[in-house]
Amino acid sequence: MSIKKIAILTSGGDAPGMNACIRAAYLAARNEGIEVIGYQHGYNGLLKQDFVEFEHRDIRNLIQRGGTVLYSARCEKFTKEEHRIKAAANLDEAGIDGLIVIGGNGSFKGAELLQDIWDKPVIGVPGTIDNDIAGTDYTIGYHTAIQTAVESIDKVRDTADAFERIFIVDVMGREAGFIALNSAIAGGADHVVLPETFESAADELVRILDKLDQRRKNHANSSHIIVITENLWPGGLNILCDSLQTETGIDTRILTLGHVQRGGSPVWQDRILASKLGAFAVEMVINDERGRMAGIRHRYPESVPLGTSREDRKPLNHYSMSMLDKITLLG
Amino acid sequence: MSIKKIAILTSGGDAPGMNACIRAAYLAARNEGIEVIGYQHGYNGLLKQDFVEFEHRDIRNLIQRGGTVLYSARCEKFTKEEHRIKAAANLDEAGIDGLIVIGGNGSFKGAELLQDIWDKPVIGVPGTIDNDIAGTDYTIGYHTAIQTAVESIDKVRDTADAFERIFIVDVMGREAGFIALNSAIAGGADHVVLPETFESAADELVRILDKLDQRRKNHANSSHIIVITENLWPGGLNILCDSLQTETGIDTRILTLGHVQRGGSPVWQDRILASKLGAFAVEMVINDERGRMAGIRHRYPESVPLGTSREDRKPLNHYSMSMLDKITLLG
Amino acid sequence: MSIKKIAILTSGGDAPGMNACIRAAYLAARNEGIEVIGYQHGYNGLLKQDFVEFEHRDIRNLIQRGGTVLYSARCEKFTKEEHRIKAAANLDEAGIDGLIVIGGNGSFKGAELLQDIWDKPVIGVPGTIDNDIAGTDYTIGYHTAIQTAVESIDKVRDTADAFERIFIVDVMGREAGFIALNSAIAGGADHVVLPETFESAADELVRILDKLDQRRKNHANSSHIIVITENLWPGGLNILCDSLQTETGIDTRILTLGHVQRGGSPVWQDRILASKLGAFAVEMVINDERGRMAGIRHRYPESVPLGTSREDRKPLNHYSMSMLDKITLLG
Amino acid sequence: MSIKKIAILTSGGDAPGMNACIRAAYLAARNEGIEVIGYQHGYNGLLKQDFVEFEHRDIRNLIQRGGTVLYSARCEKFTKEEHRIKAAANLDEAGIDGLIVIGGNGSFKGAELLQDIWDKPVIGVPGTIDNDIAGTDYTIGYHTAIQTAVESIDKVRDTADAFERIFIVDVMGREAGFIALNSAIAGGADHVVLPETFESAADELVRILDKLDQRRKNHANSSHIIVITENLWPGGLNILCDSLQTETGIDTRILTLGHVQRGGSPVWQDRILASKLGAFAVEMVINDERGRMAGIRHRYPESVPLGTSREDRKPLNHYSMSMLDKITLLG
Repeated sequence: MSIKKIAILTSGGDAPGMNACIRAAYLAARNEGIEVIGYQHGYNGLLKQDFVEFEHRDIRNLIQRGGTVLYSARCEKFTKEEHRIKAAANLDEAGIDGLIVIGGNGSFKGAELLQDIWDKPVIGVPGTIDNDIAGTDYTIGYHTAIQTAVESIDKVRDTADAFERIFIVDVMGREAGFIALNSAIAGGADHVVLPETFESAADELVRILDKLDQRRKNHANSSHIIVITENLWPGGLNILCDSLQTETGIDTRILTLGHVQRGGSPVWQDRILASKLGAFAVEMVINDERGRMAGIRHRYPESVPLGTSREDRKPLNHYSMSMLDKITLLG
Repeated sequence: MSIKKIAILTSGGDAPGMNACIRAAYLAARNEGIEVIGYQHGYNGLLKQDFVEFEHRDIRNLIQRGGTVLYSARCEKFTKEEHRIKAAANLDEAGIDGLIVIGGNGSFKGAELLQDIWDKPVIGVPGTIDNDIAGTDYTIGYHTAIQTAVESIDKVRDTADAFERIFIVDVMGREAGFIALNSAIAGGADHVVLPETFESAADELVRILDKLDQRRKNHANSSHIIVITENLWPGGLNILCDSLQTETGIDTRILTLGHVQRGGSPVWQDRILASKLGAFAVEMVINDERGRMAGIRHRYPESVPLGTSREDRKPLNHYSMSMLDKITLLG
Repeated sequence: MSIKKIAILTSGGDAPGMNACIRAAYLAARNEGIEVIGYQHGYNGLLKQDFVEFEHRDIRNLIQRGGTVLYSARCEKFTKEEHRIKAAANLDEAGIDGLIVIGGNGSFKGAELLQDIWDKPVIGVPGTIDNDIAGTDYTIGYHTAIQTAVESIDKVRDTADAFERIFIVDVMGREAGFIALNSAIAGGADHVVLPETFESAADELVRILDKLDQRRKNHANSSHIIVITENLWPGGLNILCDSLQTETGIDTRILTLGHVQRGGSPVWQDRILASKLGAFAVEMVINDERGRMAGIRHRYPESVPLGTSREDRKPLNHYSMSMLDKITLLG
Repeated sequence: MSIKKIAILTSGGDAPGMNACIRAAYLAARNEGIEVIGYQHGYNGLLKQDFVEFEHRDIRNLIQRGGTVLYSARCEKFTKEEHRIKAAANLDEAGIDGLIVIGGNGSFKGAELLQDIWDKPVIGVPGTIDNDIAGTDYTIGYHTAIQTAVESIDKVRDTADAFERIFIVDVMGREAGFIALNSAIAGGADHVVLPETFESAADELVRILDKLDQRRKNHANSSHIIVITENLWPGGLNILCDSLQTETGIDTRILTLGHVQRGGSPVWQDRILASKLGAFAVEMVINDERGRMAGIRHRYPESVPLGTSREDRKPLNHYSMSMLDKITLLG
C-alpha cells in the first residue's frame, strides 16, 4: 500500500512536547512525500471533519512550544460506536491512509475501538505528564512536569526554611506516583505520599509524623516539605493540613501546583522523546501496523499493542523507593 | 559618634532579595571597619539575644539565593512595650550602634516603637513582595514575585489554549494590586480583579462576563485568563469559578500560585535594589539617622521617615490601568 | 485627520519585547478601529512594499515570544534620499496614515530623515538591549538582556568557585556600560570594565589586579569574575586573559555571552514597557505628532523629539557606580 | 569489616549534581552510623590531608546547588606513585575505611592506581557533563548541560530568525558527541557536527552546505543553526564561519557556550541520578567492593569495574542519528 496522506490528533490532557511530536511526524512524513493534516480538538475534530493542512511554516519554531497547536479535548461521543463509524467514514472521505493519536489511556481506548472498524493503521503515541502508560518507559510531557514541580519545590523550600514551616505540595499524577516520587527525591522533600503505597489516612499520618520527628532530631531548623499525589488524601488536603498543624504545632501550608505542570516549554528529554516517537509512528503507518503504540524502551522506539498501555500497572523504580527512608528522612 | 557594630534582622513575610540586602549591608559595613551581627527569626532573636556574627564566608554566593539566612518570623510579643524595653537592653548589651530591619509595614511599626525607647539609629529597609509600602518606588522581592507569576501564567496559557478554558489565577499582594496588575498585563490576561477598583462581586462579575464576550467576538478560540488578588472575592474563588462556568458554559479552573511567589532566586532588579538599599541603610546608620526608612526613588536611594510607609495608599500606575481596556480586552 | 491605517516595522538589532510592542500597537489601534500592517525586514520591506496585514490570530500568544515576527534588518539603502522618497511613496500608495519604527539610534536617524519628506506621523519606539538611547529611562529588551547575563554569571560562578578561577565575562552594550554595570553588581562580580570609565589597558589592568589582590585578602578561596563591555579591550580579550594569567598565576577563562542576550522570552518589565510604548505610539499617531519618540520616564510614557535619542550620552546610575568599590570589592 | 568513616572527593571538571551526590552519600552513610569527611580540591586535598568533617548543616539545601562544595581540581602529582603512596598513608592516618571519587575518566585512572596500593575500597562515581564514560548509561551533570545548551539555542533561534542568519553553536563534549547530538535535535538545529562522524573539514563543509540548500528550498526564511562539538573543526570555528559566509552570502555568527554548561542548578534527572549513585557508592563501600564504579543501567545502579569506563567508546543513540536527516534537514 502506498501512503499518501496521514492525519494526526492530540487528545486528553495536554502535555509539553505534543507540539514537538506533531512537528517530527510532519517532517518524517514530508521526507517520504506524505501529506499531513491535523484534526483539531481531539476526536471532536475527526467527527466534524475539522482539520488543518500542515505546511512548513506551521511547524517552524514549534519544537519548544508548550500546549498543542491542534488543541486537545475529551470526547464523550467517541465512546459510542455510531460516532466512531462516522469517524472512519470521515477519514476515508479525507483520503487518510493512517491516523496518529497522541494522548493517554483514554484516548488509546478510543483508538483501539476505531481500529476495529477502520481498515487502515491507527497508531497511538503516549502523551501525558502522568507516565501512567505501560509498554513505554516514559510518556511525552512527563520530564517537563517533574522539572516544573521541582522548581516550585525549590522556591517553596526557600520560604519554608525562612519560617520553619511545613509545606504540603500537591502534584499531579492521576493514580500513579511517578511525578510525586521523583519530584520528592529531586526536591529534597522529607516525605512523599504515593497512591502505590497509601493504605489509610491514619497509617500515613503516623508515618509522616514519625518522619518529621526524626528530621527534627537531626536539624535545629524544623522546616519540612511533604509531596503528595493529587486526589489521594481522603476528604482533601485541608484535613491533613489541620492534623499536622495540631500534632506538631508548626505552621502548615498547602501548595497545589495545578495546571502549571501541564504547560511550559518542554525540557530536552521530552523534545527528543516526542521527536523519536513522532518519527517512529510515521514508520509504523508506512509499515501498515494496526492498533499499536509507539513506545520507548531503553531509549529506542518500539512497537507494542495499543492494549498494553492499560494492561499492567507500571511499577515505580524500586531503588528510588528504597532511598526514600535513607535520603529524605535525614535530608 | 563612632559606629563599631551594627545588627540586621529580617522580619515579616520573606521576599527574594533579602539575602542580597544582608550581603550588601555586611559588605558596606565591613568596608568602613564596622562589625555586623544578624539576629535570627526577626524580633524574636532580638528578644532572646539569638544572633550570628557574620564573616565573609557567610555572605559568599548569597546574592542569588532566595529566602533569608537570618530566618524570618512575625513576633507578637514585640507589640508590648515591656518586650521592646528588653530588646533595647539587649542591643546595648551586645554593643550595637545601629539596627537595620528588613521587612514590611508591620515590621516598621515595631521599628518605630523601638526607636522611641532606644537612642541609637533604627533603620527600615522595605522588603516585601507586595510593594504596598509608600515612600519607596519599589520593595525588595516585588520584581521577582511578578516574574514568577508571569512565568506561571505563560504555562497556564499553553494549556488554556489547548483546551479553551477559563483560568482564574490567584496572585499575592495583600491589599494592593501591584502584583496582579503587572502580571495580568505582562501575562496577556483578559481581565484583572484589583482591590483598588473592586466594588462588589455582582458588579465585577458583569465586568468579567462582558470582557469574555468581547474577547470571544475577536477570537475563534475562546480561552481566557483572569488574574485576581488574593483574599478579594467574597466567599472565595470557588464561588466565582462556579458563576463563570454556569454563565459561559466554558470549563473553568482555579490556579492559586501561593508561596512560590515568595521564593526563587531574585531577578536582577531585586538584587540591585537590595544592594543599594542595604548599602544606603549602613550610610544612614553612620549618619546617625533615627526612625527612618531607606527608600528608592527614581533609581536613587533616599531617606524618608519610617511612618511614611503606612501613611498613604501607594497608587497603581494610571497608564497601566488605562491600558487594561485597550490591550487585555482584545489580546 | 482621521487615521485609518498604520504601519509598523522593526529595525536594527532585535530585542526581547519587540513582539510585545507590535502586539500592543496592533491592539490599541484595532481598539480605535484602525487597521495595522507590518513591513518585514525593517526598512527593506518598506522599500519593497513587502508587508503583512495583521489579524487577531497573528498576535495571539505573541507577548512572551523573543525575536520579532516582522524580522529585522539593517538597511544601507535607506541612508540615501532617493530610497527614502520611494519609501514615502510606498506609504502613500498603501494608504498608511502613520508609521511606527521600533529600533535604536540608527533606525531613528532614518525615521527622522523620512519624516522630513513624508507629511504624516513617523514615531520611534526605543527597542534595543543596549539602553543607549537618551530621552527614555529604559529601552525594550534591556531588562531581559541583563537577566540573561546575570543567569549566565550565576552559572559560571558555580564553576569558578569549584576551581578557583578567574572568568572574564564579555557582555553586550555597544558603547554604553548599562548591561555590564548592572549585570556585574547583580552577578556579584569582583570588577567591571565600562566604556564610560575606561582610559587605557595599562591603567585598567592595574585596577583589576588591585581588586583581585584585595578580594584575596578577604577570602580563602580566590575565584573571581570580571565583567567587561564588548569590543572595549584593545586587541581583544585574549590579551587581557594572558595578562591576568601571567600576573596572578590563576587559571583564567573568557566567556563571551554573545547573541543569547538578544533572545529569550522577555521578562515582565520589557513586556510592560513594550506594551505601554506600543499603545502610546498609536496615541501619538492619532494626535498627529511628527518626528517624535515614545519614551518612558518614571514609569509613564512621554513624547520627546526623535533627535533627543542621539543628543546626549545617557549617564550610568551614580549610586551604582559608587557601590562598586564598596560592594564588589569584597563580595 | 565494620565501616566507621568514609571520605569523598570531587575531581576533574565540575558538573551540576556533584553536590547532590555528596549529599546523598553523606545521608546514606549517616543512616548507617558512618562518619563522612570531604577532601577539598580533588586529590590535592588528599595529598595535603586537607578535609572537612561534614555535618547536617553542611548538606542542607545542597541538592539544588551547582558546582561542588568540595571544590574540584586536576592533580598532576597524583600520576606519580610516590604521591599515591602518601595518599594511602593519609587515608589510613585519618582512619578512612573507604574512598568515593566523583569525577571522570582521568580521575578514575587515579582511583584505580590508588586501589592497587590501598587495601580498602576505592569507588568511582561518574560525574562529568560529557557522558563519555562507558559502563554507565549516563553521567552526573550530563542532563543539565544539554538543557543549558538547548535553552541557549532557543534564544539564538529567536535572533537568527529575526535576521536570517547562520549561527554556529559550539558545545562541550570533549571527544564525544552526546551533548551536541541531543542539543541539536532538541534545539531543532539544521545540522550537527560530531566527533563520531567527522572525517574532514572539506567533506563536512559539503554536507553542511547541502543541508542549508535543502532547508532553504523548504523555507522562505533562511535562518540556520549548526551545532558542533568543541575543538573539532581544524583551525577553529572562524575558518568554518568564513567558509559558510563566503559560500552562502548569509551573515554567519559563532556562539561558544563555554562554561555556563558546567554550572547551574541540576535538573531533576541529574539530582536523582546523583542521589542514586551516591547512596549506592556507600553500599559498595559497606560491601567491601574494590576498584569499582557505581554506574546506572536502565535506571538502576550497578557495580562495574573502574576500568570499564575507559575501555570502550560509548556509542551514540542510533535512532537519534537516523533521525538527523529526516528531522533536522527540514525543520
